[in-house]
This record gives sequence, structure tokens and C-alpha cells, in this order.
Amino acid sequence: MTTPVPSTARPLADRHLLGPGPCNPYPEATLALAAPLLGHLDPEFLAIMDETCDLLRLAWGTDNRRTLPLSATGSAGMEAAFVNLVHPGDVVVVAVNGLFGQRMCDVAARHGAEVVPVDHEWGQPVDVERVVSAHPSPKIIAAVHAETSTGVRSDVAALGAAKGDALLLVDAVTSIGGIELRADAWGIDVGYAGTQKCLGVAPGLAPFTINDRAFERRVERPSSWYLDLGLLGGYVGEASGAGQRTYHHTAPTAMVASLHAALQRIAAEGLENVWARHAEAGQLLQDGLEEIGLELFAAKGHRLPELTTVRVPDGVDSADVRRYLLEKHDIEIGAGAGQYASTVWRIGLMGHNARRDRVALVITALEDALAHA
Amino acid sequence: MTTPVPSTARPLADRHLLGPGPCNPYPEATLALAAPLLGHLDPEFLAIMDETCDLLRLAWGTDNRRTLPLSATGSAGMEAAFVNLVHPGDVVVVAVNGLFGQRMCDVAARHGAEVVPVDHEWGQPVDVERVVSAHPSPKIIAAVHAETSTGVRSDVAALGAAKGDALLLVDAVTSIGGIELRADAWGIDVGYAGTQKCLGVAPGLAPFTINDRAFERRVERPSSWYLDLGLLGGYVGEASGAGQRTYHHTAPTAMVASLHAALQRIAAEGLENVWARHAEAGQLLQDGLEEIGLELFAAKGHRLPELTTVRVPDGVDSADVRRYLLEKHDIEIGAGAGQYASTVWRIGLMGHNARRDRVALVITALEDALAHA
Repeated sequence: MTTPVPSTARPLADRHLLGPGPCNPYPEATLALAAPLLGHLDPEFLAIMDETCDLLRLAWGTDNRRTLPLSATGSAGMEAAFVNLVHPGDVVVVAVNGLFGQRMCDVAARHGAEVVPVDHEWGQPVDVERVVSAHPSPKIIAAVHAETSTGVRSDVAALGAAKGDALLLVDAVTSIGGIELRADAWGIDVGYAGTQKCLGVAPGLAPFTINDRAFERRVERPSSWYLDLGLLGGYVGEASGAGQRTYHHTAPTAMVASLHAALQRIAAEGLENVWARHAEAGQLLQDGLEEIGLELFAAKGHRLPELTTVRVPDGVDSADVRRYLLEKHDIEIGAGAGQYASTVWRIGLMGHNARRDRVALVITALEDALAHA
Repeated sequence: MTTPVPSTARPLADRHLLGPGPCNPYPEATLALAAPLLGHLDPEFLAIMDETCDLLRLAWGTDNRRTLPLSATGSAGMEAAFVNLVHPGDVVVVAVNGLFGQRMCDVAARHGAEVVPVDHEWGQPVDVERVVSAHPSPKIIAAVHAETSTGVRSDVAALGAAKGDALLLVDAVTSIGGIELRADAWGIDVGYAGTQKCLGVAPGLAPFTINDRAFERRVERPSSWYLDLGLLGGYVGEASGAGQRTYHHTAPTAMVASLHAALQRIAAEGLENVWARHAEAGQLLQDGLEEIGLELFAAKGHRLPELTTVRVPDGVDSADVRRYLLEKHDIEIGAGAGQYASTVWRIGLMGHNARRDRVALVITALEDALAHA
């Protein structure tokens, strides 16, 4: 048997998490993790779960009664969307303008979809015309609202207006709680997100929403028991009111309480004020980066304020700079994704980090790092 | 749009979680949740993940290099086991002596298994002879080590000795960290667990282990991308040493840090001492319940110390008593499962709660509740 690890305590690292996520949680979210744990059937917990679903409706911009935090990370939200909606042979058109669009193709194909990928140059937004004309009658059109791999925002409302009879499936992992998101007004039929980006919570849950139109077209008995939306409805009391719960699995009660606390803070600040705070911080950062001579990667006019992509200057070693920032400034920024791993950096100002002091911090540190590169 | 919930703070409930799980976490596990959050690629977090996998090997009693915490609750561990191992048409013999054996049948069938259930009376341990002779050449034999629905322990070592060429798949959700568990010595090929029982951590992760024999027989591209063990290997650095990680999904870093802290505490106390502490507390509880005139449910000689099932006395309303315990004593105990929902209670002494003071607390409170029933 492997020898157990000696329990010599390491000093706790205290990082500024300014990469593509997770970010530093809202303080309320951290405090809630340390509160006395509740059982998943405790009336106090059920009240927290009900309020969390209400607050998620606010964050999604939806009235969907089937709006809940799935008990796994954002990637499982993607899986839940496809496993519940793809019938074998269904045509699924996927707008691919980054890593997460690519992943959608893989996940959809595993569930028997005939995938029609619509490839875009990375750094560009989704071309709505090309996507909606890629197939005459797709069952699902899927797209990423805020591509975490490139820092680009796409026009989901335009996709919704042009979707026809298809279901519109949207990845809102990096948009929810950071930029405008209006699921119902934009025609989103099913959406998934994560907690560790602009919602300002540790990773571990996947906020999910599905409307009646999509739910009625779902797979009756999907291959996944864990993510079966037909069973999960009873778990959040959707079928029969808040009083009647069906045991499905043990909810991750600490994480749900943490999400609840962050959402309460967002609601108290006001969702549109939170969006404005992200917009302001992102603009300051992007202006500041250009002022120190760096070149932004994402197409102008489509840049996410919460996640900025910037080109690594010629002759600079991307990993060296990131290591310097981590070791000397306790700042984490992200490498690029895919083919841009060593030529792009990703700087996030998400949730609690969408603040002026973080902008100053990361620009000052980057100048220092580049002077040492 | 739904009106957001007003952020009037409720007083925090502080419960004794003495049901079938979650239990009150080890204090170290709670403190770790509140530590500064780390990114999933931070060298400090990767060290924590590596140590967590090492410590899980200790808890499982295995040298399997593929031992890791899956990023979802214990039920997703069950799904991961079947989705990675069941090829369409495979015969899967399932020992069913409670709710979780039943669930295995459902999950295995969704992945195309030809399920051969071997039904037992609830409250009885698995009949090894009947299970191994249920089919001449099953691909998988599946059983629950500690049935959370009935409080019964089954003899996994005997199953392992008689499994033949089949893979032995074991649910250790309620046994790991509480009673003797020796995956390698007993012939367990694949096992899953949860964090919220005897490991003394909030719910949210599924400790998982699989040996080379089972891994070589796996499905090459399972329907689940999220739980694909072929991809998850890279995520924990299994393939190429601790230095090389492949991004798969964002690890739930706070929960992993919490599991790490609980496992360090368990290792410091000594795993066999932890088992002895559970055995002693459970025996005290079971003796005490009989002394106050209650009848135990699980078959004598096969009772779990960490989860005791007790019959509700004739004429007593099960739910009334549980409500009284919660409201007057802040004690949560569990209802029975399935057909025993109103005729059995489940009392857990798991992890940090496997202590003499908890025994006194719950027996005194039960006497009070029964006097008021």
C-alpha cells in the first residue's frame, strides 16, 4: 500500500485569481462554505435551494420553472443539455469559434447526434447567418455565448430570432452574472453555466435552465441517470410544489449554500449594476493593456469585459511571465487555449474581481514581469 | 421575471447530522473550505490533488494509480463505474439487498447491460453463493458493501474470492473511512464512494478507484464525456507523472481541499483507529437503543456501526418523532428507505460523529421524543 502523505502543513497560498476561472469568490460565498452543514432534506436547506433556484432565474433572465444548480461542474452542464435532448440521428448544428464549441461537438456526437460543425476563426464571434443556414432543419442549434478560450462575445439574441423550429442550446458559463444575459427574451431553450466565473463561487455546480418547449422534446430515459432531468425535477420540487421532494441524489449542500450567498449579494447590488461593474473593469483593463503596448486578441467590438485575451509579445516566453506573476505577485493569469497556448494570455476580471484595484494590480505586475522577461 | 428573493438573513441552523449522511464534517474539512481558493492548475493545488489521491489509496486499501475524486456526488461515481465498463449486451449480475442495489440495476441497464438482479430481503446481507451462481459468465458482478438503505454490511472479500473472470464492482459510499475496506486484498476491480459519510466531508465528490484489469476492459469512448476515465487520467497526471496535466474540466478546488484536510486527519489518527472508533460508537448506540426498548432492523452479525436501522415502535408516527428531534434538539435522523419509509429510522454515527457524546445525545433525545409521541 502507498505510504500516506505526512501531514506537514504547507503555508496557505493566497492568490489573485485573474485567469479564466475560478476567480476569487465573493466573501459571502466563502463564509457560507464554512457555515454549519445542513442535510439535503432539512427544511432550512430546502428553503435555501428554493431561493437559489429563484435567484438563478434572475441571473438567467428566465421564468423557466426548471432552473436549478446541477451537482457537478459546468462541463457536466454541457453534458446534461445534450444527453437529455439528443435523440439518435438528430442533426445538431454547432457554432465552433473556440474550444468549448469543439467540445460541444464531441459531447453531442457521443449521444448519437449527427453533428454539423460551423467553424470560425478563433477570436471572431459567431456568424449567425452561416450557422442558421448550415442545415435546413436542425433539431438543435448550439453556441457559446462567451467563449472562455478566446474572450469573445457572440450575439445569442440574433441566433434566437433566426433559429426556426430548432432548439437553441447556449453555453453561458462565462457570461452569467457578468454580462447581459436574457434567456427568455433571446429565445434560449436550454442553457448551462458554471459557478466559478462571474457568479463568484468556487467551482462545483452547473446552473441549468430548460424551458417547456425543450423539456417536451427530451429523451424519456437518457443514458445518464445522474443528469436525467425527468428525475431531477422531483429533486427540486418542480413537479409538486416546494413541499414535495423526491430523493434523487444527495445535494452538495455546502456548495449550494455558497451559490445562494453569492446570488443574494448579486441581487442586492442589482444585476444590471453588476454587469456595469464588469463592463467598466474590463474596459479599464483593455485600455491599460494597450497603453503599455500590448495587442488584444479578440475581435474589436466583440470583446468580453470579464475575460480579456492579449497576444504574448514576440520574443517573450509566455510560461515564464505567468510563473513570475504567480511567484512574485501571487497573481494567476491563464495561458491561451488550443493552438494559442503559448501566444495568448487570458486575464479574467470576474465576479468579485471585476474591480478597479484588480486592474491596477495586474497591469502593474505585468509591466514588472515584462521588464524581467 | 420572477421577483428576486429579499436578502433578509435567516439565523443559521446548527444541526447534529445523525442521519444517513451528510454528517457533520471534520472541523479540518470545514476550515479548508474557507481557505483562499486556488486555481485548478496552480502548483499548490496540484500538490493537494496528488496528496489527495495518495490518501484515497490509503482509504481504499489499494495501489491503483487510477484513484481520484470525481467532480460530482457519490451517485455519479456509480454512473462512472457503469458507463466506463458496460459494453452493450454485457451481462451484469447485481446483488440487490436495498435501494442502492436497485439503483445499480437502473444505471447499468441505461448503458445497455443485460442485468441479472439477485434479490434479497432488505435487512439481510448479500448471499455470495446465490450471486456468483446467478449466471455462468457475467462480465461484471456488482454489490454494495454497506447498504445505506438498510444498515447492512456484506462480505465483499468472499465475492472477490468467487468472482471468477468477472469484474467486481463495489459501492463503498457508506463504508469508506468507517469500516474495514481493502480493495486490493478483497479483489475489488472498480469502486466508488462519497465524501459525506464516514470520510467526514460535505457532499460533492466521488472517490473512485479502478485497477488495470478493469481499465483494460473499459469502453473506449463512453457516452459520458464528463466521466470518461480515459480523459480523466490525464487530468490527475496519471499518464505521465505529476508534472504533466491535461485540462479536462475545472476541478472543484474548494471541495478537493476539504477532502484533503479530512483525509490528512484520518491518516494522522490512523485508519484502523478510525475504524475502531466507528465500531465502538456504533456498538454503544445499538446497545443503548435496545436498552430503551427499541428493536434493531438489520440482521444481527451484519450491522454497520456507522449506520443503525431501528424499527419505529407500533403506534408511533415516524415523521412526528423526526420533526420533534429536529425542532427541539436540532438533531437530524433519517427516515427509512423505500417500503420502510415510515417503519424504520436510520441513525448515522459517521466520521466526526462517531463519538461517545453523540451516542448519549441521540439516545437521550429519542427518549424525550418518544415520551412526547
